[in-house]
Amino acid sequence: MKKSALQIARASYQPKLPVTLTGSVKAVEGKPTHSVADQEEISKLFPNTYGLPELTFEKNPNPVPGKPINVGVILSGGQAPGGHNVICGLFDGIKKINRDSRLYGFLMGPGGLVDHKYIELTSDIIDEYRNTGGFDIIGSGRTKLEKKEQFDKGLEILKQLGITALVIIGGDDSNTNAAILAEYYKGIGAGVQVLGCPKTIDGDLKNDVVEASFGFDTATKVYSELIGNIQRDCFSAKKYWHFIKLMGRSASHIALECALQTQPNICIISEEVEAKNMTLNDVVDYIAGIVAARAADGNNFGTVLIPEGLIEFIPAMKNLIAQLNDLLAKATDFHKLSPEDQRKFVLENLSKENAEVYASLPLGVARQLTLDRDPHGNVQVSLIETEKLLSEMVGRRLEEMRAAGQYNGKFSPLHHFFGYEGRCAAPSNFDADYCYALGFNAAWLIDAGVTGYISSLRNLTKPSVQWLAGGVPISMMFNMERRHGEMKPVIQKALVRLDGAPFQRFAAKRDSWAINSAYVYPGPIQYWGPADVCDQCTMTLKYEHLDK
Amino acid sequence: MKKSALQIARASYQPKLPVTLTGSVKAVEGKPTHSVADQEEISKLFPNTYGLPELTFEKNPNPVPGKPINVGVILSGGQAPGGHNVICGLFDGIKKINRDSRLYGFLMGPGGLVDHKYIELTSDIIDEYRNTGGFDIIGSGRTKLEKKEQFDKGLEILKQLGITALVIIGGDDSNTNAAILAEYYKGIGAGVQVLGCPKTIDGDLKNDVVEASFGFDTATKVYSELIGNIQRDCFSAKKYWHFIKLMGRSASHIALECALQTQPNICIISEEVEAKNMTLNDVVDYIAGIVAARAADGNNFGTVLIPEGLIEFIPAMKNLIAQLNDLLAKATDFHKLSPEDQRKFVLENLSKENAEVYASLPLGVARQLTLDRDPHGNVQVSLIETEKLLSEMVGRRLEEMRAAGQYNGKFSPLHHFFGYEGRCAAPSNFDADYCYALGFNAAWLIDAGVTGYISSLRNLTKPSVQWLAGGVPISMMFNMERRHGEMKPVIQKALVRLDGAPFQRFAAKRDSWAINSAYVYPGPIQYWGPADVCDQCTMTLKYEHLDK
Repeated sequence: MKKSALQIARASYQPKLPVTLTGSVKAVEGKPTHSVADQEEISKLFPNTYGLPELTFEKNPNPVPGKPINVGVILSGGQAPGGHNVICGLFDGIKKINRDSRLYGFLMGPGGLVDHKYIELTSDIIDEYRNTGGFDIIGSGRTKLEKKEQFDKGLEILKQLGITALVIIGGDDSNTNAAILAEYYKGIGAGVQVLGCPKTIDGDLKNDVVEASFGFDTATKVYSELIGNIQRDCFSAKKYWHFIKLMGRSASHIALECALQTQPNICIISEEVEAKNMTLNDVVDYIAGIVAARAADGNNFGTVLIPEGLIEFIPAMKNLIAQLNDLLAKATDFHKLSPEDQRKFVLENLSKENAEVYASLPLGVARQLTLDRDPHGNVQVSLIETEKLLSEMVGRRLEEMRAAGQYNGKFSPLHHFFGYEGRCAAPSNFDADYCYALGFNAAWLIDAGVTGYISSLRNLTKPSVQWLAGGVPISMMFNMERRHGEMKPVIQKALVRLDGAPFQRFAAKRDSWAINSAYVYPGPIQYWGPADVCDQCTMTLKYEHLDK
Repeated sequence: MKKSALQIARASYQPKLPVTLTGSVKAVEGKPTHSVADQEEISKLFPNTYGLPELTFEKNPNPVPGKPINVGVILSGGQAPGGHNVICGLFDGIKKINRDSRLYGFLMGPGGLVDHKYIELTSDIIDEYRNTGGFDIIGSGRTKLEKKEQFDKGLEILKQLGITALVIIGGDDSNTNAAILAEYYKGIGAGVQVLGCPKTIDGDLKNDVVEASFGFDTATKVYSELIGNIQRDCFSAKKYWHFIKLMGRSASHIALECALQTQPNICIISEEVEAKNMTLNDVVDYIAGIVAARAADGNNFGTVLIPEGLIEFIPAMKNLIAQLNDLLAKATDFHKLSPEDQRKFVLENLSKENAEVYASLPLGVARQLTLDRDPHGNVQVSLIETEKLLSEMVGRRLEEMRAAGQYNGKFSPLHHFFGYEGRCAAPSNFDADYCYALGFNAAWLIDAGVTGYISSLRNLTKPSVQWLAGGVPISMMFNMERRHGEMKPVIQKALVRLDGAPFQRFAAKRDSWAINSAYVYPGPIQYWGPADVCDQCTMTLKYEHLDK
């Protein structure tokens, strides 16, 4: 593998551990915990792992030699910057506790455990991946560990390799399944601890006990670099409106963080659209209104940030899509109709309300809603080019406004979608430190003998040496939610809180940003240089801490 | 304007000037020059500015005090990283020669000269823009300075402001026009020198005397950062083929440089496609062949770089587009036909060869070719989503191969287009130094009293202190070319040379890169840190120098 100059230089970066973790560690138990909701049901579902205490790590003045341990590690779900450093920290941690400890990586995600595909991660391998982006050290995958047969099959290989602790690095679903697996192994006396680490660029795995998921910091910095560059271009050329869609389907944290960093003219927050029960036309009117107001000042340019999942947060679109799914599931001969007859069929069979929404969509999007379907027959919402849908509808709305004498400008839209550009970037100093510490900390959770815990570091707005290390039972983040028609215990997803400081800050500024071009140009992530440039956490994290 | 932490810290970067330019400067005349072709015609068109000598700057052991001078500056055409530093260098240069010198910036491109829109650039303003991206200090525009009336109108404001030298920062067309303007002003004894600076991210303004245009270094580094990140994602997830289109319509320098930096599985070079007279199907077969070969190894993922201008380099497509332009110009009622009848009309009226090409295109693209037309009635080639066109055709080809038992894999394409993301990035150390030196050097060309010259720095693969400073007559880069039906003197555009070292290096490696995933991950531009990381020039420049 040919390495870039940056990779070579960055390999020698030594992540800065919390002081507590720099020597031998003592686990201090807090009070018993409870799930955030549905405590009775959840306690029944987790008889062996519910109600456990939070753990806080302190320096151990009387260290005892640690025992060697064999540990397995899994990367689960979408890539996020810093995953390699979690594994490097875990490796260094278990080696520090006892140099005879071993680390095994299961390949291509949770499926590797079930299918017994793994490699031993030795220091030669580990050293190649320090402070790098990507999940390619062992690969990742989306197989869900949910079934008893998977658990039992996995246990076979764990026993065979003498593995007594498994670390699952993943998002809310993967950590949910880590807790279920922990409970199962504990219940059958398998002798395998299961621990989680909070990963996702989306930023929606966070709560009172997990301050941030790793990867969010780096990914939003990459997107903000690009948005800043585009804004500088936009402000220099003064002739385009840039519609920029940002990854993050369930929550708008990425869009909100990027907006705080770059100060665009417009940023749509899905959670607000839903809370205000806005229609697609409401969103279009909002954007068109700002385009027209800027045009009145002679500014026929601007930027709009759009969260990837917007469509699914618009109540009227959600209803339309649900009815389309039902309708087309039954209409077996639909694909044999001509495009004109398909449209006619759809409009005649939808409810009046949904038919109106459908008729208001640009032809291409309307057609896409009836064409591309996933294996379950559902509309593939992620294929809808929301950024083009919006700009097309805004363009039409502006022409109506022009006819009514309310607009007299030029509207030339350009489109961008950023997602894959940021998921595997080399981690920022924050994520390099955070991930390494999460992995290192997980080693001490293993040493403490606990299961069903997530590796936890808090006080994240402070320099990393001051972070507080420990672990929290995953079950304390649970509530019951309907999934595929059944009530299940799951980690509550963190959506953007409209009463939270990050959104409030944005909401207080956006009207000014809309009219005045107040663009900020963050530039690329810097790994060396002034601390002001290199060692900043996200604005989301900063404002959330101000809230506390 | 709220500044990012990086902007604030970067403002204090002091570009490293060539040693020659650090004191007083003496201009040494070389031999008279000649244009690269069509010397007789061009010498007649430029009676006052043809055949002038090259200038080389040396340290002046006997400096005489310089005279104060009023200078105008114009940013012309598309944004390129470092434009602000050219202006900062020019400002510092004329102030160094005499502190009473003044700099005026004409607003929003050459149009500002004609329309008398300008600001005086004082040190307060200049200091806000040091080492920043964008052209927003005075804006840019695409008005072409070509007509006598424009020249005369411009001269009015130059006279009014006492400006005796004008620096035009632009690409090949803008420098061509700078030379024509220089000749005109010289011819009428206007007393205004006109000088050029070589700008364009496309990298196609270079030749024996101009080693590189500014902005190419930074832009290709931004694109390579993103391509590298996507490749790391691709290699981690192992399930997508990424089709990545890169800006650069006339030449494939950007795609080639990015390929050398990132080692993708596939990179199409337009100049090669044209030289080999390849059809669109040939390109599709080439890509599909590599997709199938990788699939045979179990690798259903990869990356393809595509230069923006590809379509126009495919001879068969060029012919088709030309005939379509003619055909539809005459078919005044075409837009009244139904889509089906439009297609029928086109197929019936094209030549047999062109009809075959047209019929082979995906429906959406075929339709686009007959729909979107520019004000002159021509197909808007830049609107064609070449990355989607290719992936769709590759997908179809793979299904044919599957039917023939030649392919047994999965093909899930994703699409990206990078252009605006890089044009206004904060300049790399190379571009920051190069641009500042180009502007500073232009001040000395003014002091030397010449006109029709382009600011020139050579030896660019060496540290900037060792660069050779001077100037070359723009007319020596000229040849005669047909433009809008007339033969005109223009700067020869530099296309990718298939016998040049950059392409040869790529060609020698690409078969290995196609099958082996040899991805390199350059990471983001670093402004601080190890010189290996921060101070590298492009691989194109490096290999071109090896060629010399």
